[in-house]
This record gives sequence, structure tokens and C-alpha cells, in this order.
Amino acid sequence: MRFLHTADWHIGRRLHGFDLTSEQIHAFEQIEELALTEHVDGIIIAGDLYDRSMPAEASVAQLNHMLQQLNLVDKLPIYAISGNHDSAIRLSTGTPWFKSTQFYMHTRLDQAFKPVDLPDTQLFLLPYFEPFDAQQYFKDDSLQHLDQAFVPVVNKMKTLFKPNKKHLLVSHFFVDGSATTDSETQLRVGGLAAVPVGLLKDFDYVALGHLHGKDALHAQNARYSGSPVKYSLSEANQKKGVFIVDTEPFQLTFKPLTPIRDVQQLTEDFETLTAADYYDQLKLDNYFGITLKDRKPIPNVMARLRQIYPNIISLDRAAGYETTIEESGESSDQIRQKNPMDLLRDFYKQVAKDDLSPQQIKWAQAALKIANEGGVNQ
Amino acid sequence: MRFLHTADWHIGRRLHGFDLTSEQIHAFEQIEELALTEHVDGIIIAGDLYDRSMPAEASVAQLNHMLQQLNLVDKLPIYAISGNHDSAIRLSTGTPWFKSTQFYMHTRLDQAFKPVDLPDTQLFLLPYFEPFDAQQYFKDDSLQHLDQAFVPVVNKMKTLFKPNKKHLLVSHFFVDGSATTDSETQLRVGGLAAVPVGLLKDFDYVALGHLHGKDALHAQNARYSGSPVKYSLSEANQKKGVFIVDTEPFQLTFKPLTPIRDVQQLTEDFETLTAADYYDQLKLDNYFGITLKDRKPIPNVMARLRQIYPNIISLDRAAGYETTIEESGESSDQIRQKNPMDLLRDFYKQVAKDDLSPQQIKWAQAALKIANEGGVNQ
Repeated sequence: MRFLHTADWHIGRRLHGFDLTSEQIHAFEQIEELALTEHVDGIIIAGDLYDRSMPAEASVAQLNHMLQQLNLVDKLPIYAISGNHDSAIRLSTGTPWFKSTQFYMHTRLDQAFKPVDLPDTQLFLLPYFEPFDAQQYFKDDSLQHLDQAFVPVVNKMKTLFKPNKKHLLVSHFFVDGSATTDSETQLRVGGLAAVPVGLLKDFDYVALGHLHGKDALHAQNARYSGSPVKYSLSEANQKKGVFIVDTEPFQLTFKPLTPIRDVQQLTEDFETLTAADYYDQLKLDNYFGITLKDRKPIPNVMARLRQIYPNIISLDRAAGYETTIEESGESSDQIRQKNPMDLLRDFYKQVAKDDLSPQQIKWAQAALKIANEGGVNQ
Repeated sequence: MRFLHTADWHIGRRLHGFDLTSEQIHAFEQIEELALTEHVDGIIIAGDLYDRSMPAEASVAQLNHMLQQLNLVDKLPIYAISGNHDSAIRLSTGTPWFKSTQFYMHTRLDQAFKPVDLPDTQLFLLPYFEPFDAQQYFKDDSLQHLDQAFVPVVNKMKTLFKPNKKHLLVSHFFVDGSATTDSETQLRVGGLAAVPVGLLKDFDYVALGHLHGKDALHAQNARYSGSPVKYSLSEANQKKGVFIVDTEPFQLTFKPLTPIRDVQQLTEDFETLTAADYYDQLKLDNYFGITLKDRKPIPNVMARLRQIYPNIISLDRAAGYETTIEESGESSDQIRQKNPMDLLRDFYKQVAKDDLSPQQIKWAQAALKIANEGGVNQ
């Protein structure tokens, strides 16, 4: 059989304040097109359909439309699970009715043990769960961490294996040995411990969600599809797409998706960034993370860069070029006795690694005079 | 045909801070039982399934369970619409799949013109809508108010009437001539104008939601079922229940629901309320709104009443017994010149309609002495 494996749609997600709705719809349309032209037998969505447990109305309308389009219009089976970003309860709304059209959405641990039986494949849909859920289900308080909780889960699935069929697992976890990016590392704070990859060895294929890069894990039989859209600057160099999974003979084919606006990192000095022969070679409406190699302060830097790069998602200084405040070695008493002009001179030197210019000194003296005179009457 | 008409479940609603989950489940179980024993052909739910557009997870789980139970377990058709408390978009999740089991949930105006065709009845499911929606749908900006917007809606429905069938409308609005209670009047602030009852005359029956009392409207062919649970003190005297609607011959039968804890209003003086021969005749775990006929201050009154009546939802003074501050006729300069003891005496008289007792005067003088002595050093 042939499946399309995708995950981490994160409907509702924004990129540093920029709305990604059209980007997500654009990616979805490519996924739909691929599913149809590749004649897949179903679409696997490995969790994090929404970005938030309480999605906005617009996000609900968007995801509802996408799932209806795939399942009711295109007549494609859907095999989906809830991820750690989803509210399992909200996502479960309507699911008992969905099965009539081969749309499976599993949101509870117990549903993982009711595999979808296809002609030559058993599909185990294991939603994101907490060790606590496994403790409850197996009545075993010793299952404190995910690696422990995963053992009885996999063992129970194996008792359900039909030997003449392929066994696919759809799951949403951090698998030991995977590489993370900024977008997901923060999610691990919630208690996402790692699943040892060895636990997955008896499955013909494990369609994973959670990490956003397709190269996060290179196991023989387990892959992250990655997200269809770049969701952080740390994903700038990832190639986004989906996997086409053939079960017999087993074959994985990565199909890239193209963005409307790519996410790119630029590390240059201000002069280069604002030179036409540099930026003329770029697609200027991309989302840019800009790292300046300059050391001096640049007045109005964001506004000036935005005139060329309208979609800047971050701006910082390159490592080694930061304007750091060094310890002067003076005590606070010593500092307090300095006059304001000397303090300003020292501060400017520390921040800008340079001396005040004569014009700057004149401005500062004039400002101090006004401040002092104003202060007399108070 | 025979329908059960209910509305305004308001799942997630609280009564002055008290959780009503078990009350709502208790009412639901009676509705389910009635539907089965009365052999109805379907259940009409005329809007406000949820209390809030963004219901809590627990409310989502609760309503999902109820609808699954009725439709998938009991195999009862459901004919439902969204009300002004519901988010039409959230409530629409899954609805395209629901139709396969005769579960109709209409949340958009255009769906009102796709009647459900039953053997001898056409069911028009008109969700709550704003005049703006009608302006868009009919491309007519003159539809500024609900009474205007309702005219083309009803006219369009009439063009769809099949003459050999009964025509039922399910709707969620304030119909002109209805009586409101506290629970709904506040909802009218949102722009709920009234629909003239005459506009509804061509329907064999109009199953209404929005107002919480079954007696809010006594039209020949239009009724509010009322909410299954009392949701405010102003509903204390309402009889809660559902209508069984027979279409041929037309007949309405009200079926009462019993609460776990009723909502009751007590208007008595404190002495009566705390006398065993009075309260022994009451079901003391009911929700009580208490109106005191006393005029004097009663120290710790709420705590003392709660020892007898644990579920007090409001406490006030009867009209005519309020402790109001009357204008003394003195200017603020005159008042400022009075000594503290005189001010206290006047204040007590105004509030308690009585003079300070000798003991109270002694306490006040002692307190003033301490306050004055403390003040000397400041």
C-alpha cells in the first residue's frame, strides 16, 4: 500500500507575528495534489494539527475545511492522531462519525490498541500521551517516564500483530537520537522525554510527528515527515515536504513542498545588506532573520532594513560582534562621584567601542546644560 | 411524526459559582429516557447547546458524549441549530459527517434553505444569525434589523414548501410578545431584536430556543421549550421540561423534568429563616435566593444562613426594607464640623433606622479614644 506521511501542521501558528495562513493553505494544496497524483491509499497526519489547544475560530474553520476536502471531496482516507499541541478532547469532536468515511482520528491511548485493519497493513494510531495516561491504562504506577510507558504500549500492540500484514505505527514523540530545532525544544519543557528508537524496531514503518525537520531521525524504519511549513528561523535550512511511504516493497520517497515565502538567515554587515548588488539577488519578500556583523550603533536600523526587507523576523548581532558592557573595575561609589559627561563618555566607549565625536560631545553638553538649568527651579 | 423539542442546554453554565454539571447530566438522562419511551422520530435542539463560544474542555467532552449517546447509541435522529451563545464555527466541526446518521447541525444561514425532508414533514433548521448575515446572503443592505431580515428568510423557505407535507421551523430568537427572565434579557444587549410572531404563521410548528421559560410565548403554532435546568433565580418559578410535538394530528404535550436541586426564592426575616419549624419543611440543599425582610444589621448574616442553607445563590433585602442612606439636608461643610461621635450616631440612624444602644456608644467611645491617642504621635 502507499501512504502520504505528513505531520505538525500547527494550524494557527504565526511566525514572529506574521500570519502564516496563506502559507499553510499553499502547503496544504500541494499535499492534496501529491496525494491525488501519487494515488496514495491514505494520508497519515502524525499529530499537532493545531498549534494551540484552544485554537481560534479561524483556525478551526481552516482545519475543518482541509479535512473535509481531503476526506469528503477527494475521498482520501485519513489516519490522524493528536499531538502535544492539540487538545485531545477538542480534536475528538465528531470522531465517532468520521470512521464511516475512513477518517480515523485517535486522541486517546486506548484507541492505539484498535488498529485500522487494511488489506495488507495494520495501522496503529498512537496519539501523544503522558506517562500518567499509561499508568491509568495499565494500572501500573511504576511507569513514571515515557521510555518506561512505551514498553507496555508496544508490547500490547505486538500481541495484536497479524503476521501476514505490515505493521505501521503513527506516533508523536521525541525519539532518542533525533536532532531538535528551536521550534520543538521548547516543547520538551512540558515533560516530553525520549523514546528509545530500539523500542520501535518491530514496526515496518513508524510515521513520526513532533520534530519539524525530516532529517531529525535517520532510522531504517522510522522518520519524522517534518512540518509542511518553516515555523522558526532555526528551520531556515530545512527542506520541507512529505514522505510517500510504499509498504511492499518498502520504499520512502521524499516529496518537497515549495513555500510562498521562504525563511532565510542573512549574516552580513549593514553596508552589504543595504547595497543593491547584494539584495537584488534575494527574494525580498521572504522572511529574513538578519544578523549584523557591525559593531557600531546604527541609528534606526530596523526601519532602514525594513525598507528593503519588509518581512524581518529577527535582528541581532553576530557572535563576537555584540556590543557588550564590560566591567570597568570601578566601585559604585567611584562611579557615583563622576560627572555626567564623563559617565556618558565611558558608557559610549563601552557600548560603541569608540570615542564620542566632537559633534556628539557638543550635543551632549548642550543637553546637560538644559537638564541642569531645568533642575535648579525644582 | 413525533419530535422531542428541547433547547438552551447551555453546557458549561454555572449558577452563581455553583457547578451545574451533574444537574445538566441528570436533565439529559431524563430527556434521553423520554425520547425512548415516547418513541419520538427525532430530537430537536433549538440552539445554545453550549453556554460559551469558547467552551471549556470538560464542556466539550460532556456535550460530545450526550450527542453521541443520543445519535450513535440510541439511534435517534438529531435536528439541531447553533444559538447566540454558541460559536457557529466551533459547533460546525464534524457536521458534514453527522448527516450519515441523521444528525443535522445547522450553523450557517444558507443551511436553513436545505430543509431536512422526512416522510411527512419538512424541517427547516434556521440557526441564530445576525442581520449582517442576511444582508450578505440576500445581497440587500436594507436588512438592518432582525424583523426585516426575517422576511426574505421566511419567504425563501415558503418557496421550498412541499404542499403535501408539514412544515416545521427550528429557530433561536426573541419572538415579539414573549416574556423574558434575567437569564435571557442580558443576551438582548447583543442586538437580538424581536421577530414578529405573525411572520411565523405559515409553519405548522416553530420550535424555538433562546428564552428559558416554556410559557414565554403562547402562540398557536410556536413555543419555547425552555431550558432543561433553571439557570437563574428569575427562573425559580418556571416548570422545566420538554415538548413532545405530534404533527398529525398536531398536538403539544409538555413533559416536566425534575432537578436534583431546585432553585427557590425565600423572602422572610432572619428569625423565621433560622427557626427549625420553618426550615425543616424545606429541601435544604436546594439553591436558595434569600431576601431578608429585616431592617437591622445582622452580623455575619451570610455565614449564619449558610449553616442552614449551604447553597445560597443570592442574598438581599426586600423592597421597602433596604437600609438606604437618606439625604440629611446638611452641607458638606456642616458635616465636616461635626465631631466623630455625632457622625457615627447619624450614620447608624440612617442605616439601621435605630439609635445606638448604650453598649454600642461605650464601644464607639473607647475606639475613638484609642484612635485619637494613636493619632497624636503622627
